[in-house]
Amino acid sequence: MRRATVGIVGAGQLARMTAQAAISLAVDTRVLAKDPSDSACLAASILELGDPDDAEVLTRFARGCDVLTLDHELVQPALLVEIERGGCHVRPGGDVLRFADKAHQRSCLQEMGFPVPPFARAESALDVIAFAAVHGWPVVVKTATGGYDGRGVFVVEDPAAARRVASELASRALVVEPLLEIDCELAVVVARRPSGEVVTYPVVETFQDDGICLETVVPAMLEPALSAMATDLAVRVANAIGATGVLAVELFATPHGLMINELAPRPHNSGHWTIEGATTSQFENHIRAILDWPLGATTLMANSAATVNVLGGVGSVDPVALLPAALAVRGASIHLYGKSARPGRKLGHVTALGSDRGAALTLARTAAAALKGPRSLSTSEEGHGI
Amino acid sequence: MRRATVGIVGAGQLARMTAQAAISLAVDTRVLAKDPSDSACLAASILELGDPDDAEVLTRFARGCDVLTLDHELVQPALLVEIERGGCHVRPGGDVLRFADKAHQRSCLQEMGFPVPPFARAESALDVIAFAAVHGWPVVVKTATGGYDGRGVFVVEDPAAARRVASELASRALVVEPLLEIDCELAVVVARRPSGEVVTYPVVETFQDDGICLETVVPAMLEPALSAMATDLAVRVANAIGATGVLAVELFATPHGLMINELAPRPHNSGHWTIEGATTSQFENHIRAILDWPLGATTLMANSAATVNVLGGVGSVDPVALLPAALAVRGASIHLYGKSARPGRKLGHVTALGSDRGAALTLARTAAAALKGPRSLSTSEEGHGI
Repeated sequence: MRRATVGIVGAGQLARMTAQAAISLAVDTRVLAKDPSDSACLAASILELGDPDDAEVLTRFARGCDVLTLDHELVQPALLVEIERGGCHVRPGGDVLRFADKAHQRSCLQEMGFPVPPFARAESALDVIAFAAVHGWPVVVKTATGGYDGRGVFVVEDPAAARRVASELASRALVVEPLLEIDCELAVVVARRPSGEVVTYPVVETFQDDGICLETVVPAMLEPALSAMATDLAVRVANAIGATGVLAVELFATPHGLMINELAPRPHNSGHWTIEGATTSQFENHIRAILDWPLGATTLMANSAATVNVLGGVGSVDPVALLPAALAVRGASIHLYGKSARPGRKLGHVTALGSDRGAALTLARTAAAALKGPRSLSTSEEGHGI
Repeated sequence: MRRATVGIVGAGQLARMTAQAAISLAVDTRVLAKDPSDSACLAASILELGDPDDAEVLTRFARGCDVLTLDHELVQPALLVEIERGGCHVRPGGDVLRFADKAHQRSCLQEMGFPVPPFARAESALDVIAFAAVHGWPVVVKTATGGYDGRGVFVVEDPAAARRVASELASRALVVEPLLEIDCELAVVVARRPSGEVVTYPVVETFQDDGICLETVVPAMLEPALSAMATDLAVRVANAIGATGVLAVELFATPHGLMINELAPRPHNSGHWTIEGATTSQFENHIRAILDWPLGATTLMANSAATVNVLGGVGSVDPVALLPAALAVRGASIHLYGKSARPGRKLGHVTALGSDRGAALTLARTAAAALKGPRSLSTSEEGHGI
């Protein structure tokens, strides 16, 4: 009996944790990495080095796989559509991956009747100023493609700032939206099979700083009705766009109701807690979903689970050096991604389960602080309340 | 910062699951495999092919590792002592690995004052008959080395049978012991660092058939005092022999008290439940222990956890082909080892957590039965009660 082979384009931490989960199911993972020092390289069953933007490289890579999936959304969707036509499953498919273009994503969701923040495409400072004339200053300007972890997102206070940002981002497609009044940010991680089966994980509350997800806590502190609405919204979006694999639906809870902030058609930072905290991790469910296998239970295994990201700090020590100290924090589960330390780079995360949100978050923060070293301890302690 | 590298000699499922756990800690694993189709090959960070019995191969392999550990006990202890002298940590050390000789193990434990069943070394049928004259028939005859999963173990009813077995095992060192009256079989998985820190997992009840572990359930159904005695015994053994890494202490609960059946100085079948069921898995704690890093919490995460092994059956279907059906059993966690199917071979296991022993075991059995296919369903249903 031949084992299934999943090809993963890109070799970041999501590919790494997906490959790790695939081991339990005897699914072989082939990873296409640009650089042998990439996070997933030592976790993959089979490693190939090459540029995913090279049509020939990608086509050849796909040939050895039962199904192709992606670590990030930076691959050319047209290339993937081509590969699908050639007979290899690409999941999520090229159509879903076009959503990496935020302007396209917003337009599609709006057309399908889903609640999204007011927005406009912008190509110049004039477009931004026109939008602000209707919705008021400040506004948020984002590059339509290529932004992640807060990169490519700018809060713009006035026309002068709009001109500065527009000139800095000259020739890039932009999206402009109001700076929304937000009660909290939520995420719902969904897994969906091509045959239509859908499972959802409990709603997660996410905490960002400067656009980077720092902490997640589950369950979100919400009225049950709002939680059910968030889950329902995520399932409807997954079905509407024909998602296959894991889809993270990021939501804003605002005084005017829930709005979809962004979709990520892959395992997501807001689902890392599922490795320890749920019966089936988002990574295993991603594998199951793209192979069209039955999906696993998504039950939260404790009262609460919290995840704290470990980011590289300026002049901070490599967390690898601090690992033994962090492991001494009994009960926290540490994940390091094997990446070289650079300021702002996600180098790992810590998850802790607890009898309540406070207990879980405190434990995860304590271990994460130990990984960051004394320099960043105070920063971590300044975190939001729960 | 250089990451730690753990060398694993042997590439079975224990190496595979250890390598999988190492990914989270950014520990690289180098695996020495005899055959590229071995279970751990696709899970290792770095794979080397070679014969661990070849001193030169093993010495060269050890050179690239911070610490060397073992998937099985079939390596020559003398060779490992040599490697330790050369400056590479071997954990467990050569002294502990001499315990792979059951006669030596029993003698040592007895000398140290630990409770072991009555036994004698035997070299001939006459030795077996002399032992039975004192302890009564039937007796159990075991080869001192090389036996596992019930291989090399014989229940001997009378002098004629003793002569047959002795002639079949001619020239091998044997151990003879009475066929004990056993209330239940237990196992305590311990992790111990070179610096002396010890953690223990909750006591597991194990169910064997023909010497092969089929099912494990935690917690064992024991009086708290007996459970505490079993744990205390396991810790004292680990300290007495200077174990480093995970040590499984297999115990018999008899009408005359607890007796040590056997020690396994490595992650063990009776600890597979810890992957889903404990805060830290036995595999992660093995990695931590051999690197002398702080050990992780061993708390049971549910009321009960059960593991059912998946063995190859005669003429049965490869479980890989039945995986989607088994995944449909919601809530069970499936592990396949990527080994080719052969009768009696351990091909995988299923773990389930539950609100009580019955719920956990029923769920795990249902998924395991699905992996075995219709032919072996009835066999599985004949299992012992709980």
